[in-house]
Amino acid sequence: MRELVQLFLVQNTSDGTFHHQDIAKIKQRVNKRCLWFEEELEPDLRWVFGVSKILHTGESEFQTIELVESGPFGKVLLLDGKLQSAEADEFVYHESIVHPALLYHSNPKKVFIMGGGEGSTAREVLKHSSVKKVVMCDIDQEVVDFCRSNLTENAEAFSSTRVELVINDARVELENRNEKFDVIIGDLNDPVEGGPCFTLYTHSFYMHIIKAKLNVGGILVTQAGPAGILSHTEVYSSIYNTLRQTFKYVLPYAAHVPSYADTWGWVMASDQAFPTVNIKETDYRIQKRIQGELHFLDGQTLCATLALNKHVRKTLAGETHVYTEDSARFIHGYSSGLKNQN
Amino acid sequence: MRELVQLFLVQNTSDGTFHHQDIAKIKQRVNKRCLWFEEELEPDLRWVFGVSKILHTGESEFQTIELVESGPFGKVLLLDGKLQSAEADEFVYHESIVHPALLYHSNPKKVFIMGGGEGSTAREVLKHSSVKKVVMCDIDQEVVDFCRSNLTENAEAFSSTRVELVINDARVELENRNEKFDVIIGDLNDPVEGGPCFTLYTHSFYMHIIKAKLNVGGILVTQAGPAGILSHTEVYSSIYNTLRQTFKYVLPYAAHVPSYADTWGWVMASDQAFPTVNIKETDYRIQKRIQGELHFLDGQTLCATLALNKHVRKTLAGETHVYTEDSARFIHGYSSGLKNQN
Amino acid sequence: MRELVQLFLVQNTSDGTFHHQDIAKIKQRVNKRCLWFEEELEPDLRWVFGVSKILHTGESEFQTIELVESGPFGKVLLLDGKLQSAEADEFVYHESIVHPALLYHSNPKKVFIMGGGEGSTAREVLKHSSVKKVVMCDIDQEVVDFCRSNLTENAEAFSSTRVELVINDARVELENRNEKFDVIIGDLNDPVEGGPCFTLYTHSFYMHIIKAKLNVGGILVTQAGPAGILSHTEVYSSIYNTLRQTFKYVLPYAAHVPSYADTWGWVMASDQAFPTVNIKETDYRIQKRIQGELHFLDGQTLCATLALNKHVRKTLAGETHVYTEDSARFIHGYSSGLKNQN
Amino acid sequence: MRELVQLFLVQNTSDGTFHHQDIAKIKQRVNKRCLWFEEELEPDLRWVFGVSKILHTGESEFQTIELVESGPFGKVLLLDGKLQSAEADEFVYHESIVHPALLYHSNPKKVFIMGGGEGSTAREVLKHSSVKKVVMCDIDQEVVDFCRSNLTENAEAFSSTRVELVINDARVELENRNEKFDVIIGDLNDPVEGGPCFTLYTHSFYMHIIKAKLNVGGILVTQAGPAGILSHTEVYSSIYNTLRQTFKYVLPYAAHVPSYADTWGWVMASDQAFPTVNIKETDYRIQKRIQGELHFLDGQTLCATLALNKHVRKTLAGETHVYTEDSARFIHGYSSGLKNQN
Repeated sequence: MRELVQLFLVQNTSDGTFHHQDIAKIKQRVNKRCLWFEEELEPDLRWVFGVSKILHTGESEFQTIELVESGPFGKVLLLDGKLQSAEADEFVYHESIVHPALLYHSNPKKVFIMGGGEGSTAREVLKHSSVKKVVMCDIDQEVVDFCRSNLTENAEAFSSTRVELVINDARVELENRNEKFDVIIGDLNDPVEGGPCFTLYTHSFYMHIIKAKLNVGGILVTQAGPAGILSHTEVYSSIYNTLRQTFKYVLPYAAHVPSYADTWGWVMASDQAFPTVNIKETDYRIQKRIQGELHFLDGQTLCATLALNKHVRKTLAGETHVYTEDSARFIHGYSSGLKNQN
Repeated sequence: MRELVQLFLVQNTSDGTFHHQDIAKIKQRVNKRCLWFEEELEPDLRWVFGVSKILHTGESEFQTIELVESGPFGKVLLLDGKLQSAEADEFVYHESIVHPALLYHSNPKKVFIMGGGEGSTAREVLKHSSVKKVVMCDIDQEVVDFCRSNLTENAEAFSSTRVELVINDARVELENRNEKFDVIIGDLNDPVEGGPCFTLYTHSFYMHIIKAKLNVGGILVTQAGPAGILSHTEVYSSIYNTLRQTFKYVLPYAAHVPSYADTWGWVMASDQAFPTVNIKETDYRIQKRIQGELHFLDGQTLCATLALNKHVRKTLAGETHVYTEDSARFIHGYSSGLKNQN
Repeated sequence: MRELVQLFLVQNTSDGTFHHQDIAKIKQRVNKRCLWFEEELEPDLRWVFGVSKILHTGESEFQTIELVESGPFGKVLLLDGKLQSAEADEFVYHESIVHPALLYHSNPKKVFIMGGGEGSTAREVLKHSSVKKVVMCDIDQEVVDFCRSNLTENAEAFSSTRVELVINDARVELENRNEKFDVIIGDLNDPVEGGPCFTLYTHSFYMHIIKAKLNVGGILVTQAGPAGILSHTEVYSSIYNTLRQTFKYVLPYAAHVPSYADTWGWVMASDQAFPTVNIKETDYRIQKRIQGELHFLDGQTLCATLALNKHVRKTLAGETHVYTEDSARFIHGYSSGLKNQN
Repeated sequence: MRELVQLFLVQNTSDGTFHHQDIAKIKQRVNKRCLWFEEELEPDLRWVFGVSKILHTGESEFQTIELVESGPFGKVLLLDGKLQSAEADEFVYHESIVHPALLYHSNPKKVFIMGGGEGSTAREVLKHSSVKKVVMCDIDQEVVDFCRSNLTENAEAFSSTRVELVINDARVELENRNEKFDVIIGDLNDPVEGGPCFTLYTHSFYMHIIKAKLNVGGILVTQAGPAGILSHTEVYSSIYNTLRQTFKYVLPYAAHVPSYADTWGWVMASDQAFPTVNIKETDYRIQKRIQGELHFLDGQTLCATLALNKHVRKTLAGETHVYTEDSARFIHGYSSGLKNQN
């Protein structure tokens, strides 16, 4: 009887002897994955990763919901088959959408999160000891329930007494609430054709709803789509310009999020000038205000995320497109069309 | 006879009328690509893009060479089936590997490029009016011939009288040359198992070959592999630490290169302190020294590329691995094994 | 507020009017699958289908076990990531491996199934009213338990009093049993490198084990790998020739199994001449002996599966390779190597 | 200096010695393909093979044209990105579409090929010594020119004095010609939505054009799309039934074509009864009438291709759909829409 032994040998050319090579590497090569997640970033660009396990699946009236164990990114949350957030690097996105605005605000007490049903954005907001109340307003009850049940890292956030969880259309909720906020965070789906969210990136929404609901000195921050060298013209520059046409002060920033296969963009906007927050001051505020440790952001990193490269800055400076209901731009992708928000 | 007409209509819900939607978008969806390039970034991570045309193919004694027209990235150069450089964003990589070192040097006259057979690195170096001589030393005659014939954007560089083109092993060439350089640029293949290049990232190479060939105040800069949040531990931190163990002053930096699907890393090293070059001074030097325009780098961008994020900085600070012939680390990928350099 | 309406219109060119096209088709195109199963049939040939749900997963000491809901093939059973059996067309494989041998036998009472842990082969055998006892001998307890729990279509077979289920190496079990069989069925894994099964396709196994355990007039039938125009030389022709060197009478046959992306082959072998069973006689035997309906096989179909095409017949006639432990041929694929049978 | 040596060793467990395993296999595993052709057979079913070289590309007013060197199938001709014909197994398709009809005809002298611009169908027809004239009528000049230049295996057919090559719409050409044919062959594109060919599968076309152009005893044979267990209901059963409603005698047949990843179907139809051609008689006619050797078909094979399996026969028997311009069925796939034939 024979037995197949798989070995990689390394030959020492000086004396001809062989030594065993780490077998793990060759095993990786030989053991083929058979289940793959594929996201079509563009019609001719695919991001494909191996999936070892489907942890949970669900479907709301708006979208399909899946939690899978991926090879390269750990646990990955998918909405409508689009990667929303990956265990391995979600801290980059969530620290970036939350902390710059809260650090630039002099004393943020009340925060409104549009979307954010995953819970990670609330989790980061709650690290600020100044914050007394976080309204987290997501339209999709099932996503919220799913994440509350399955994302243990956000369990504390979901159960915090400082958090008020509302299931509603963010626009309707803001309009109906008789209160204002220090920071409003747009942790929204990307604007895709047929999707529920593109009206929450429009000039009229910013002008008539958001402005009315910000306290004096209040800051809006919104995720603003891909902001890479090749992708920032899709919606990022337009969202930036739309905010520039609406608010007196606007700060765009960006960071590479590996699981998104791109650099991602956010924009802060306010009618009051942003303070001059240098590296040292940022580090001081982080130390003073934030409980728990940040892993991505500190003074130096924030400085770098705000310093967009020459090419992107040039596009942003020259952008004239204003995002309205009638002139909407979309990034590649499709809504499941299960139900539209508006 | 009937004719199929494909339309996307937009219904105005206020009055029920329909308007035509841009037909281009839906066409993109319906017309399927059939030829795809696939790069296996990790055993379970694939980067896949549509190819509309194979422009040229070749094979050297070291590797296969292909130039294809891609959907998302324009013309793409592939060596051993690995994306080397894409028309759409090669300026990010090549401006980054060349200009920081040359701008930090007080007066760079002689530059040695290890690798760089594509010609783009020489093209960027030649933008510096102070540079009198560029030695471009690639081991692969066919790659050089192929790129000279097919990459029109580098034609001027290949024919410049300031460029001395040598086909040789960079280590042997440096050893044999009876001269020193102001800047040595390591525009090398990634260190992959069985590949020709990993010995050009080792402590002994830096210590015994590079140091001996740098003029006083000279700077080494080398590409150093992926430097993303999730990938910087593969080889980047080790190359950084190896240089830190070899040179008195070391500056790591990084930028997202979309066609690489990752943030990329470089490291500058010198035995003389780097000057304090702030944003204004960088912009001034660019204006004074560089002929032609840079598209990615300026003072603000350089500042950002040098400001690695907190997570990566922490790894780099704590890295203890020194890259030697016996302790080599590799990134995922395979050499064609056509011939090894060493 | 506007609503995006996706329509495909058909224009009648005679009068210019439009009619709605079935919306389902365009929806299919627009809603992208994101989870895919990929089987590497050859190093450069992939069979890829959309997966909508992972129904069950498991792992035995021998292999990984998965049941997924696929788009094109319904429920699919995967062992070591290789498609074993698909709801949509498993009847082709299982009717083919069972009924020809049992119909050609004059009066099959005792049947031994090597492998077949899925239960479908036993299910088909039990349709023969002459059969008093079926020994189903699979080495993998977990596969058997998994299929018994999850494949409802085989529930009846698993609970039949005529079935004796044994968990053992088929070779050891046959050797140890003090009885002979009318039909022995090799419902085995393909012979892959490192896999548990290749020794059950060898000349010595057929000669020393199988022959000794067949009653007079007994028939061996084994699955024999891909038998397509391009694939029959991998192992099919060799298994055929090996049986031809061992038994007096050998009948190879084949049928296209869509989910395998190939024509599949089986071989019957006996030391007693096969009866002349024409179309009419086959249909008569089916009617007389079989309870329940066959969906793939009848007299005409059996005749066609036995009539291999000219090209394959020519290869088979000229094949000289005999399958032994030392001369084993393999089809492309890898064992998980969790544990080898031998 | 060390050198990486990749070995697979086989250990003989009886004495513990190692022997080298064929290195080619492991090399296949390690050397990754990077260029892939992908055909979407169904929205959730992909057939993907490695491409080593693009041999030629072109574009006509109707479709894109490509000739690539594939790993598993040799040279492959693609029209609109759909595999038309592969070097490795085109003989199965072309022998099947040509020889049954010509062998069943008592004395075929004049043959009309609708489509067939590739030249392979004419090549097979010309093997019949009785044939005096072959009209090959393809609508696409560029496909014809491309294949004439690049498919050396068909050079003789293109230059035969027995062949009359016409560039025209087959329907128009048949209507305008003042002559009849013994055999008309429909070597057409599949009926896909928006494609040029679906009207050449309709009842009215068969009734009014084809019938009028067949001599007494004449036979129509047409390719009829996929005919596998899972795919024969797409268009095959409908084309069969449409011919059954039009002609007195109809013979459907099918064979697995590996590069199509499916069993393929054809249908012969005539108003005169087909002769009883048994295996022996078929072999006799082949020997007497055909110059050169057939590789797929002989008497036994033809018998098998005509014997559809029980499941497919049942569908065909019960099919009621008649293919008309207004009730057209399509197989999955898209026309480039460069220009429609009708």
